[in-house]
Amino acid sequence: MLSWLKHYRRAMLPGDIGAGIVVAMMMVPQGMAYALVAGLPPVAGIYASIVPPLLYALFGTSSTQSIGPMAIISLMTASSLAPLAAPGSGLYGVLAAQLALLSGVVLLACGLLRIGFLANFFSRPVMSGFTIGSAIVIAWGQLPVLLGGLPHVHLPSASLGLGALALLLWARRWMAGTLRRIGLPAAAADIGAKLAPMAVVLGSLALVSLMHLDAQGVATTGAVSGGLPRLNLATSSAHWQALLQPALLIGFMIFLISMSGAQTLALKRGEKLASNAELVGLGTANIGSALSGAFPVTGSISRSAVNFAAGANSQLASVITALLLGVALVAPTGWLALLPLPVLAATIIAAVLTLVDLSLLRSAWRYDRADAAALVATAAGVLALGVEAGVVVGVALSMGALIWRASRPHIAVLGRIAGTEHFRNIDRYSAATAPGLLMLRVDAGLFFGNVEAVNARIEDELAAHPLTRHLVLVLSAVNAIDTSALFGLKELNASLLQRGVLMHLAEVKGPVMDRLKGTDLLPSLSGRLYLSAAMAWDDLARDND
Amino acid sequence: MLSWLKHYRRAMLPGDIGAGIVVAMMMVPQGMAYALVAGLPPVAGIYASIVPPLLYALFGTSSTQSIGPMAIISLMTASSLAPLAAPGSGLYGVLAAQLALLSGVVLLACGLLRIGFLANFFSRPVMSGFTIGSAIVIAWGQLPVLLGGLPHVHLPSASLGLGALALLLWARRWMAGTLRRIGLPAAAADIGAKLAPMAVVLGSLALVSLMHLDAQGVATTGAVSGGLPRLNLATSSAHWQALLQPALLIGFMIFLISMSGAQTLALKRGEKLASNAELVGLGTANIGSALSGAFPVTGSISRSAVNFAAGANSQLASVITALLLGVALVAPTGWLALLPLPVLAATIIAAVLTLVDLSLLRSAWRYDRADAAALVATAAGVLALGVEAGVVVGVALSMGALIWRASRPHIAVLGRIAGTEHFRNIDRYSAATAPGLLMLRVDAGLFFGNVEAVNARIEDELAAHPLTRHLVLVLSAVNAIDTSALFGLKELNASLLQRGVLMHLAEVKGPVMDRLKGTDLLPSLSGRLYLSAAMAWDDLARDND
Repeated sequence: MLSWLKHYRRAMLPGDIGAGIVVAMMMVPQGMAYALVAGLPPVAGIYASIVPPLLYALFGTSSTQSIGPMAIISLMTASSLAPLAAPGSGLYGVLAAQLALLSGVVLLACGLLRIGFLANFFSRPVMSGFTIGSAIVIAWGQLPVLLGGLPHVHLPSASLGLGALALLLWARRWMAGTLRRIGLPAAAADIGAKLAPMAVVLGSLALVSLMHLDAQGVATTGAVSGGLPRLNLATSSAHWQALLQPALLIGFMIFLISMSGAQTLALKRGEKLASNAELVGLGTANIGSALSGAFPVTGSISRSAVNFAAGANSQLASVITALLLGVALVAPTGWLALLPLPVLAATIIAAVLTLVDLSLLRSAWRYDRADAAALVATAAGVLALGVEAGVVVGVALSMGALIWRASRPHIAVLGRIAGTEHFRNIDRYSAATAPGLLMLRVDAGLFFGNVEAVNARIEDELAAHPLTRHLVLVLSAVNAIDTSALFGLKELNASLLQRGVLMHLAEVKGPVMDRLKGTDLLPSLSGRLYLSAAMAWDDLARDND
Repeated sequence: MLSWLKHYRRAMLPGDIGAGIVVAMMMVPQGMAYALVAGLPPVAGIYASIVPPLLYALFGTSSTQSIGPMAIISLMTASSLAPLAAPGSGLYGVLAAQLALLSGVVLLACGLLRIGFLANFFSRPVMSGFTIGSAIVIAWGQLPVLLGGLPHVHLPSASLGLGALALLLWARRWMAGTLRRIGLPAAAADIGAKLAPMAVVLGSLALVSLMHLDAQGVATTGAVSGGLPRLNLATSSAHWQALLQPALLIGFMIFLISMSGAQTLALKRGEKLASNAELVGLGTANIGSALSGAFPVTGSISRSAVNFAAGANSQLASVITALLLGVALVAPTGWLALLPLPVLAATIIAAVLTLVDLSLLRSAWRYDRADAAALVATAAGVLALGVEAGVVVGVALSMGALIWRASRPHIAVLGRIAGTEHFRNIDRYSAATAPGLLMLRVDAGLFFGNVEAVNARIEDELAAHPLTRHLVLVLSAVNAIDTSALFGLKELNASLLQRGVLMHLAEVKGPVMDRLKGTDLLPSLSGRLYLSAAMAWDDLARDND
């Protein structure tokens, strides 16, 4: 907690102040846009960007993670609340805050229970598929706002929206280069390009007020209650119950999304994240968001990367961002009323289009078709069944891959390399076997996921070598044997004995042997225990001569 | 399909006939009892024991598996249907058949999709916990029937029920011994003891009709429509939809329960089960049960073990059982009307008490506390939240264990055994390291579940050895690298290079190297590729002198 403050050095201050200002300018349009995605008034996005990062700075472990609204989490919020209340209604806002509270409590509880290892749940292809699918859903949902209606396009709105979108896409691709050409240093030019959304939003505000576009039917955010957020959480117990399952899914994705971004940045700085502390940081941040009357938040890789690039050295940068946004809120907010929705839709579409990154799909397609298929299936799941079902599809595919992998342990039939003490896979080396002796090396820990696969392979090998009298399991690569596998070995031993085959163990690792000593596997073993494969060979191959 | 028939030998016939008769006598009380657990009239249990085993004999692969009603699946059926219809109503029976149909289709689809590897989903402790919890729920649910009511016990019913229960428990413990003492051969005595439920049921029927116990208020099954089953499946689409999720859970458990029993028996005979064919066999069996107007069925380990012990050599035994039950159905069934429910409750309680087997818990407690905790948590989940939530708890715990295991790969810091070419874990051997050179051996395939753990360990070791200039990853135990891990290695390589540490790979296995060749990891590798750890040492340790 606050370990960054203990090691704070004065030299870190300028970077943190600069990054704090840059991220605040980025946060204003982004926060408002993602509030819209969540079905909430734009100002809620600013609320969600003040208290949460302050709490994360207190409890989190990433130095540059920027906490606040995030497109996918906003989409999940909207999709969870849609069956319960109408967007824009008072109840909807209350439920959004409740959802943040429940998600925060879930995250906090997971952190206190120290189950941060769950961050390893999603494979990268599944995460990529989920992100791509969600981004397409978000962009698609903003199309009517961008065009001022569908199928009847409102021309002034569509011009404004498409113009803003073109500007944003241009800025992303070429603005940094232009800024460099007019003399800005490379780093400053890159950062400047990131502020394009803020510039476009301010420009559109000016345009609307000068040309009275709102009178011509361009939708704007309308009067927003400024000032600091008010707390309101009291709804019925039926509502709390209905929000529990969405909160579990959203909490899970908050953690996965935040961790995947933070880990990328941590690797760049050689930092180490504590996943349980991250859970606590994200949990308190969401509870803080709830108490601000906002909605679920998480770390955003795009925003955190800007924070990092703008020179952030510690969470002080995020504290500065939060303070600036707080000041903006107590300033007059009447200007927000004229913010044209098509332009906000353009910033949303431009932002989520960066999430549609097909490079992983391309790599996976070349490297591992199963991974590529998992990516496509998860994206298709999100598109066809919705974002929540998409999480479930992703979990099922990741778990399926885990079980499939576990159920196919690598098992080598060993033979002796002539004239040596070395035993190798007979499929890869020219190694000799002995009649009546079958030596198998299992290259995986033995546990419930592969007990049956190991048995099946042993039956196959025994069928292929019907004269076998001795089976030697070489356990040099077995780091653990769980209860299921222990019972599996005992049953295998008994079954082989009935059929006249003795089962021997060789090269059992120290920690595995320590645990086996207390069980009845060793006393009941039909064969013997050998320190090395060579000793087993010397003993048993001779026996068959 | 029917492969057992091709290899049928005449010598197998007597065993099959004997076992067929024994199992039929066991099936009558058991089928009726489990129909009651499922909330259905007893005769439905007989229906469920005719067509399903015939279809399994056609498609399944276990020679001695006995398909029919099973306590836990009946409990899940009752629990799934309870919110939709009143037990005993016409709709309830229709929905039970529909549930069997949907479960069967799910199983069949899984078999055709060849995803039988999902049988490795549950660890044994989780399965044991689920079984124990379900057995307690079933026994508890039968208590009021056994006692003729609760809290007001009906004395004649309770006497009959408790008497039957005492008789059944005595028979299980001592009857085989008694039969041996009066001269029966040991095997026949064991089988005879298994027929105690049939004897108790017949005895109670006689008692009720002689003493007119039904007139004294002892509940009986009442008039049952005999004859062959009638098909009736047409209900609303809302019902089909409501049954889909239960059908998925029940299909999953049908498969797990059947496989765990069949595997135990297969091991005893050195048989190999084909899990995808098993899925097809169980799927068609359940579709057959639906078409018989019955309810979900599965293989029962207790019944299959009797079948095995009574001498069954092939599925012909089950065919004979089914034919005998079919004959019993077309015979007059009026006698069934007097069957006293307290006695059926006693057979249920006696049967499920055998499922409360604490031996695995005891072993797990001594061997692996985490496994013991998973067992207790799953049982508690079933008791506190119900049998369906129990499945979910079990899956979550098994998956949690899988991820936890994956996230803790064994990683050894290697040193050189003086005067040799051997490199070993410096924690277990006295092996020398070289300054500036860090050699790590990862003893697990690299994939999404352990990418972060490997990174974290490397960061820890680099922090402990700040002078490191060369990191050698010894991949002798890495059998596969998935897309996530490939990206992880590329990022690690880039991150280490930024910090002045070169990353080398050594002892990459053939199949892993074949796949890495097409990627950009090798061209971008900051260090080199070594055939052996010794070559890396010779090259890099010298470099540091």
